[in-house]
Amino acid sequence: MDIATIAGLILSLTAIITALIMDGGTPGELFAHPSAIILIFGGALGATAITAPLKIVLQLPKYIIQAFTTRKFDSRGTIDLLSKLADKARREGLLALEDDSKKIEDKFLQKGISMVVDGIDPEQVSAILETTVAQMRARHKQGMGFFTAAGAFAPTFGIIGTVMGLISVLKQLDNPGALGEAIAAAFLATLWGLLSSNLIFLPIAGKLKAKDEEEAHDRYMQMEGILAIQAGENPRIVRDKLNAYLSPSEAKSEEEAGDKKVPAGNAERAKA
Amino acid sequence: MDIATIAGLILSLTAIITALIMDGGTPGELFAHPSAIILIFGGALGATAITAPLKIVLQLPKYIIQAFTTRKFDSRGTIDLLSKLADKARREGLLALEDDSKKIEDKFLQKGISMVVDGIDPEQVSAILETTVAQMRARHKQGMGFFTAAGAFAPTFGIIGTVMGLISVLKQLDNPGALGEAIAAAFLATLWGLLSSNLIFLPIAGKLKAKDEEEAHDRYMQMEGILAIQAGENPRIVRDKLNAYLSPSEAKSEEEAGDKKVPAGNAERAKA
Amino acid sequence: MDIATIAGLILSLTAIITALIMDGGTPGELFAHPSAIILIFGGALGATAITAPLKIVLQLPKYIIQAFTTRKFDSRGTIDLLSKLADKARREGLLALEDDSKKIEDKFLQKGISMVVDGIDPEQVSAILETTVAQMRARHKQGMGFFTAAGAFAPTFGIIGTVMGLISVLKQLDNPGALGEAIAAAFLATLWGLLSSNLIFLPIAGKLKAKDEEEAHDRYMQMEGILAIQAGENPRIVRDKLNAYLSPSEAKSEEEAGDKKVPAGNAERAKA
Amino acid sequence: MDIATIAGLILSLTAIITALIMDGGTPGELFAHPSAIILIFGGALGATAITAPLKIVLQLPKYIIQAFTTRKFDSRGTIDLLSKLADKARREGLLALEDDSKKIEDKFLQKGISMVVDGIDPEQVSAILETTVAQMRARHKQGMGFFTAAGAFAPTFGIIGTVMGLISVLKQLDNPGALGEAIAAAFLATLWGLLSSNLIFLPIAGKLKAKDEEEAHDRYMQMEGILAIQAGENPRIVRDKLNAYLSPSEAKSEEEAGDKKVPAGNAERAKA
Amino acid sequence: MDIATIAGLILSLTAIITALIMDGGTPGELFAHPSAIILIFGGALGATAITAPLKIVLQLPKYIIQAFTTRKFDSRGTIDLLSKLADKARREGLLALEDDSKKIEDKFLQKGISMVVDGIDPEQVSAILETTVAQMRARHKQGMGFFTAAGAFAPTFGIIGTVMGLISVLKQLDNPGALGEAIAAAFLATLWGLLSSNLIFLPIAGKLKAKDEEEAHDRYMQMEGILAIQAGENPRIVRDKLNAYLSPSEAKSEEEAGDKKVPAGNAERAKA
Repeated sequence: MDIATIAGLILSLTAIITALIMDGGTPGELFAHPSAIILIFGGALGATAITAPLKIVLQLPKYIIQAFTTRKFDSRGTIDLLSKLADKARREGLLALEDDSKKIEDKFLQKGISMVVDGIDPEQVSAILETTVAQMRARHKQGMGFFTAAGAFAPTFGIIGTVMGLISVLKQLDNPGALGEAIAAAFLATLWGLLSSNLIFLPIAGKLKAKDEEEAHDRYMQMEGILAIQAGENPRIVRDKLNAYLSPSEAKSEEEAGDKKVPAGNAERAKA
Repeated sequence: MDIATIAGLILSLTAIITALIMDGGTPGELFAHPSAIILIFGGALGATAITAPLKIVLQLPKYIIQAFTTRKFDSRGTIDLLSKLADKARREGLLALEDDSKKIEDKFLQKGISMVVDGIDPEQVSAILETTVAQMRARHKQGMGFFTAAGAFAPTFGIIGTVMGLISVLKQLDNPGALGEAIAAAFLATLWGLLSSNLIFLPIAGKLKAKDEEEAHDRYMQMEGILAIQAGENPRIVRDKLNAYLSPSEAKSEEEAGDKKVPAGNAERAKA
Repeated sequence: MDIATIAGLILSLTAIITALIMDGGTPGELFAHPSAIILIFGGALGATAITAPLKIVLQLPKYIIQAFTTRKFDSRGTIDLLSKLADKARREGLLALEDDSKKIEDKFLQKGISMVVDGIDPEQVSAILETTVAQMRARHKQGMGFFTAAGAFAPTFGIIGTVMGLISVLKQLDNPGALGEAIAAAFLATLWGLLSSNLIFLPIAGKLKAKDEEEAHDRYMQMEGILAIQAGENPRIVRDKLNAYLSPSEAKSEEEAGDKKVPAGNAERAKA
Repeated sequence: MDIATIAGLILSLTAIITALIMDGGTPGELFAHPSAIILIFGGALGATAITAPLKIVLQLPKYIIQAFTTRKFDSRGTIDLLSKLADKARREGLLALEDDSKKIEDKFLQKGISMVVDGIDPEQVSAILETTVAQMRARHKQGMGFFTAAGAFAPTFGIIGTVMGLISVLKQLDNPGALGEAIAAAFLATLWGLLSSNLIFLPIAGKLKAKDEEEAHDRYMQMEGILAIQAGENPRIVRDKLNAYLSPSEAKSEEEAGDKKVPAGNAERAKA
Repeated sequence: MDIATIAGLILSLTAIITALIMDGGTPGELFAHPSAIILIFGGALGATAITAPLKIVLQLPKYIIQAFTTRKFDSRGTIDLLSKLADKARREGLLALEDDSKKIEDKFLQKGISMVVDGIDPEQVSAILETTVAQMRARHKQGMGFFTAAGAFAPTFGIIGTVMGLISVLKQLDNPGALGEAIAAAFLATLWGLLSSNLIFLPIAGKLKAKDEEEAHDRYMQMEGILAIQAGENPRIVRDKLNAYLSPSEAKSEEEAGDKKVPAGNAERAKA
């Protein structure tokens, strides 16, 4: 479970319900007129579906699950692995990585290393990996785009609902007693439009964007490492290059660990 | 027919009509004041027409049909075809593709392969294909631009209609009995402005954008394949390059199929 | 005259006037309070003038005329001409184009061909032509920018006018009889702000943008042709390259025509 | 003085005051509640200052002066000068420009020519001049950014002021007599927010942007000339290259003048 | 302490409180209904947290402290240091910089120089430093993104609060006495939404952006210097290149100082 998503959702809902109760209302009032909820979700999701390819619509549950689950990217583990492979490749040649490549669990990294072992031209390896990442991001962007669009349509459908409600109200001005209640019901549509957009659609879109950036960051780091191994670069430089992808705090502990783990690299560096 | 477009439209309209009926109205009320509808569609389409070249305006029906129909891009079929051509070109030379090129139905792919057969310089082939795709996208963008602009003008004309209606109302405050009805009629323009923008203009623009991206994706994949064939690349690598354009699920089934179909490629790869 | 501009304007105005009359008003009411019109046009054009260089302000009439007139770009004529020149240049050398270059009416194309004849370095020719197009587009962008800015300022000045009107009204609440009329007058400023922005300023900006793209499209095509001639490319390839700038329907009729007109090119292509 | 700035300001203010008087008010009413003015300018400038580096805040007077003064860029004089230097450099060598470089008043141009005379590598000259222009534009952008931000904050603080005013009003509904006046006072904050943004902050930002583009245009033209001189290009081509930066009308008169001034260039061109 | 941040905050708050008091209110009124404050901060921060990775949420205090503290970048000191190193490197070779590199306090600069001393390939040095800066900026952007998102969510939650309040009010129209007070309380949510966004979230986001640009400016200058030293460029040119990063006023005093400090450079330049 993604803790920030859950915590954020609980914080927002608590704040809304607390404010509602402090003002003398009850959460149940939000559900008093289901027509508002039907209009917002039906209207916004419908309008968004018109704009989206069918396969995106069918994958919506997958996207929602992605937003609520965490995928851990172990940057330091990847750096250790790639440095080790760079070291081995330098000493024993690229073909020596064949067995290692089969043990790699990450499909992208495994594909890259196995292409290197197969002796495919560096430019081709780079092109294939880059296309893979670009296509992955294009697919992610379609998912984000769906929720961003839904987040833009929802408040508008809220206003549509309120205007429809007010038009009904204005036609029956004869009964001033029920007027307040009817106007309140009309505004409920605006409220649901804003709530669904700001608590559901836009945050999911934002989360998917954050996860896309995290995954792309990981992929670019792996690509840099794979190409450096293929170019036969010094393992120390490979490690330096990959460490540049870490934040200063990560890099610091990494450096200390690195000094212990690759003393050979230091020696080699002094000679270089 | 594009199922997502139809389903989305039905979902949205059902939600609106349900909400309307639950609030005690009838769908007929939306059409009670045709002046609102005339103003929105006449005003928004007129203002958009001012900004657009005449030929775009004349092609509007074509764009609308495009948004409602599906064009299937058979990525895996294209990959199979290009891998086969790459294989043949490598064994028998580029000129051997002459007959194959004439059988290709896709005009863009056919043009590319026939230029390769004609021995035109790779840079020229690449430049001509790139210009073709860029011009195609520029034309698509003009179509999208029309509907995006109409979607931006429509709500404004809705507000113009409501303000005009309110000005009329305010001049006749003497008759409080008809006041509510008149204000309701004025708000109908806002409602139509929002509805036409969010259910017609913007979704069509979004759909055209999605279709443009789908077609461009297909074209870029074909270009990559054509240029790889011309460069005489290993059929296995051509297939790898094109597979990078597939989503992981497509690529998986593709890979299994590929292993069966091009065993020679695997053998060759082991030797490479 | 640009037919789309005129037709769009007539459509929009008709829709507005029809809606006005159907709601029981008259077009004359729009001009009942000239203070609104003075405020919108004076305020918006004044604020825009502050942001614009003086020379742009002085050229406004020229920009407005541009938006209402059509300039025909004869793409196919240009392609025929450039193919013919490419053919001649290949057979008789670049110097043979001297007389042809003097007969070209289009200043940009004439400049380009005459530089080619003068034996100026291809990179220089390319740089000079690119700078010329870039500067042309920068000038066009300033013109568009003026109308876009005016279109953004106008509705705001409409709101300013309405707020000023409401402030006046609120100070004289003693006379409820004139209240409706006074509020209506205040809203007239909002109406004019929206109308002037959506029927005048933004559509003119959009039209200038469309014309800029059309002219740039023509220029880029000419540039491609000029540089291809200088590089001594095969006339058939020159034609192919330029055809890539046409839409499929244009290209189709072009292709048929081309086959008839340059049969030599086909023969040569077979030999190439 | 920048005439467009002054004229635009006068036009806008006249329009506002005329509209105010035609609606039966007086300009003095705008200043009736100084609290609105204090809130808008204090609030908006304060919020903007939080976002800006201190040195930008301290240079605000300089930016405002820049917006109201004109700096004349004599493009044709620069072209004449650079063509003359190109001619001299070609005949007598780059070192012959040493005395000329000392007489150039424009610091940027002088720096460039003196680097050329010093025999600094063309790539270094290009890099240094490009960094200089990029840094100049980054500094200009900070100034623009301040006024753009203030223009975005001002209307919001206007709404804040109006909401604060309405809250006060709503607490004292007992005195309906003073109600209209109090609401009017509350709306004055919105009015000042809109006026200050649209007549002061945004136009100044726009003007600074226009001046930045003008100066950058001049700088890029000078850079092109300096590098062409260093490359020892033909003076006629230098002139052609720089003329591409002029508008067609400027270029036309330039061409006629050029033909008279550099007949040698024409002769040389015929021989080239 | 960052003076502009503190001064801006004081100016804004003073303006708001002054306006409040001049209109006959008290600052205490803003805190009369804590439900508004709970809703805005809980709702906006909760919704933002959903969109952000957990580690960003945990680092919020760090970001806030950054916005309120100044980090001084001594550009001229850096230029002096790099010129001195360039001079030494040219005379005694790159290895002579080993001791100097250990004394550099700035981690980024120290890393760069020590890589140069280690004889790492220039392209690798450039790639590693560029990745380091790009990753730093990506991290900064996540921080800014949090506050920008919170600044966008806050006013919406303000409107949500007001709509919720109005719905409660409309249900109890029976008690007109308390009506004004209740509506006023409802509008307090809008007020807090606008205030928190415009005085807290957006200004912090803007400040973080300004600080990111300042740091990146410093880093790019250092990178240019490190690579110039490695390329063995003339110390005078190194200084010229770095001076291009200064504003004209800084550069002027720098130039005078520079002439005194590196007379040798001038001599060398005359010979070059």
